[in-house]
Amino acid sequence: MLVLFTDFGLQGPYLGQVHAVLQQHTPGVPVINLFSDLPPFDIQAAAYLLPACAQGLPPGTVFVCVVDPGVGGARPGVVLRADGRWYVGPNEGLFAPLTRRARNIECWVLPPPGEEVSPSFHGRDVFAPVAARIARNGRFEGEGIMVSELDRPDWPDELHRVVYIDRFGNAVTGLRKAAVDPGTVFNVNGHQLRNARTFSDVEKGQAFWHENSSGLVEFAVNLGRADTVLGLQVGSEFSD
Amino acid sequence: MLVLFTDFGLQGPYLGQVHAVLQQHTPGVPVINLFSDLPPFDIQAAAYLLPACAQGLPPGTVFVCVVDPGVGGARPGVVLRADGRWYVGPNEGLFAPLTRRARNIECWVLPPPGEEVSPSFHGRDVFAPVAARIARNGRFEGEGIMVSELDRPDWPDELHRVVYIDRFGNAVTGLRKAAVDPGTVFNVNGHQLRNARTFSDVEKGQAFWHENSSGLVEFAVNLGRADTVLGLQVGSEFSD
Amino acid sequence: MLVLFTDFGLQGPYLGQVHAVLQQHTPGVPVINLFSDLPPFDIQAAAYLLPACAQGLPPGTVFVCVVDPGVGGARPGVVLRADGRWYVGPNEGLFAPLTRRARNIECWVLPPPGEEVSPSFHGRDVFAPVAARIARNGRFEGEGIMVSELDRPDWPDELHRVVYIDRFGNAVTGLRKAAVDPGTVFNVNGHQLRNARTFSDVEKGQAFWHENSSGLVEFAVNLGRADTVLGLQVGSEFSD
Repeated sequence: MLVLFTDFGLQGPYLGQVHAVLQQHTPGVPVINLFSDLPPFDIQAAAYLLPACAQGLPPGTVFVCVVDPGVGGARPGVVLRADGRWYVGPNEGLFAPLTRRARNIECWVLPPPGEEVSPSFHGRDVFAPVAARIARNGRFEGEGIMVSELDRPDWPDELHRVVYIDRFGNAVTGLRKAAVDPGTVFNVNGHQLRNARTFSDVEKGQAFWHENSSGLVEFAVNLGRADTVLGLQVGSEFSD
Repeated sequence: MLVLFTDFGLQGPYLGQVHAVLQQHTPGVPVINLFSDLPPFDIQAAAYLLPACAQGLPPGTVFVCVVDPGVGGARPGVVLRADGRWYVGPNEGLFAPLTRRARNIECWVLPPPGEEVSPSFHGRDVFAPVAARIARNGRFEGEGIMVSELDRPDWPDELHRVVYIDRFGNAVTGLRKAAVDPGTVFNVNGHQLRNARTFSDVEKGQAFWHENSSGLVEFAVNLGRADTVLGLQVGSEFSD
Repeated sequence: MLVLFTDFGLQGPYLGQVHAVLQQHTPGVPVINLFSDLPPFDIQAAAYLLPACAQGLPPGTVFVCVVDPGVGGARPGVVLRADGRWYVGPNEGLFAPLTRRARNIECWVLPPPGEEVSPSFHGRDVFAPVAARIARNGRFEGEGIMVSELDRPDWPDELHRVVYIDRFGNAVTGLRKAAVDPGTVFNVNGHQLRNARTFSDVEKGQAFWHENSSGLVEFAVNLGRADTVLGLQVGSEFSD
């Protein structure tokens, strides 16, 4: 299975062009748009979402991951094999939390792209063909690099920051539920939020935090929009 | 063929995660996003759209239907076989119009989900695996229930309410064209709308009603937006 | 490979219904949403995007192209075979630039649709079944027409007009990079824009023009939104 994890948006030709490349290189392998509207250019938000979104997917899955504000610049592309799943994308921090949490990991650097490659679309012209080759062959051969070269030592293990607002106004954070005591009360823009199992366990209109379906702490309001009620957007910080 | 009919939105990881589950359970079976932006939490709107959208699809198609304001609550999941097509989803009224219009129908209730299931994502963890199993086996075995348990006796056969606004501003209603006399004049926020076959049959800017491509009465404006011209949104009511 | 190039939007049931038809007619042939949010009703914008988006796709690809303000009207549907790729859609100018640039081309007209066809959804009921048949058979038999009947002689070879604004605010034009001298300075709403290879080659916040990943001239701002900075929307004109 090939999986796209990008900030391309669903609009325009970008996702479709990547699908077309993958289809030509590995006919018959299913391609899934796992996340297409990651916050634009926000590498850190995507980095903390990636391990959470990846965990349910089977070994052998190949991810094409692109959030790339430095598009066309000198940052190298990398390939990771972490806990049996493969990841291909630019090395600007996107894989940092993943490397810290993996039990088994191996990393390679991609050679600099040639002249025929569009400098503004490495996702289509560089990363997708590499991912297709891995999906076809089940392996990658290239120049290995140290896992530490993918880390961002200045980033915390758990991120107290909103990394995504979904269609319903729920605010996903970069903090894993498993790292938090269930009795924790979060201070979110002056609101004190307590844990509940899920929406239907609180009153209509009440704000709470819960473990979302990807294992992350999420701020929510039963039958309401947490982003509006709590004044949140991607990047908003909070404390416990 | 598996078909997704949801209010998840195309944003975020939700649709992709359901695709990934289906792909793992029934590799090779195509999965189609039939409707992904149903009005959020509006069970009634979705319920009257469902039979209209389903009618062109072949026998054996399996629908995963999720519009679920009571997410994580006690409402049971159900499985229907209606006129040869299968439907899986929460029983909160979503299947009521479908049950009234089907010529052949059979219904089952799903057992309560186990502890391992995310309370906020039954679409991925409960309904998708069941749908995949039906797509694979062509049958379902479980505890049968009366069709009447899926009905909402307080809902009319034809709904005089806007159930969807499309990209072009056309206002889809819950009223079937087949149930309406072609000479009907609808009173829509003070505008008197007459029938026309299609857009190009009226003047530019003129409002009219027509049978849309799913057999429903739709309010439209040639080369204009009916929602703006007529002041309509999902939920707006009208009379004939 | 089947490719959808439309202004349907990703919202609503339209794309999914076309997928369902294609799936029934040609099971196993992949279907790619190449462009789903073309500017609504803007035939000219779509017409200049089409050859740029098509160029990377392999021979044998079949495009379903629909931008159709005259929906249900008398304009005939056509089929083209241009440089080994197939195109099906309404003949209102959408294929004009394509016909001028193709090295090999053949055109046919479709018979008028029957009574059973929804007048508001020829994409699903007319063009998709024809495209599926071509994908299955690798050929089309019908009434040939002159290529000149698809042209719009009043349209220029290169269009000095914005034809799309992408998620990041980049403004795509109908002008091919190959037709422009690299030293060209574009006058865009009073801003003088010079060429750069890509985003990372200019200062943060600086506006420039570059060859986008489809070979078109695009106005962009490094780590900013060109549409906002330059006051651009679809249809905006400029000069060199």
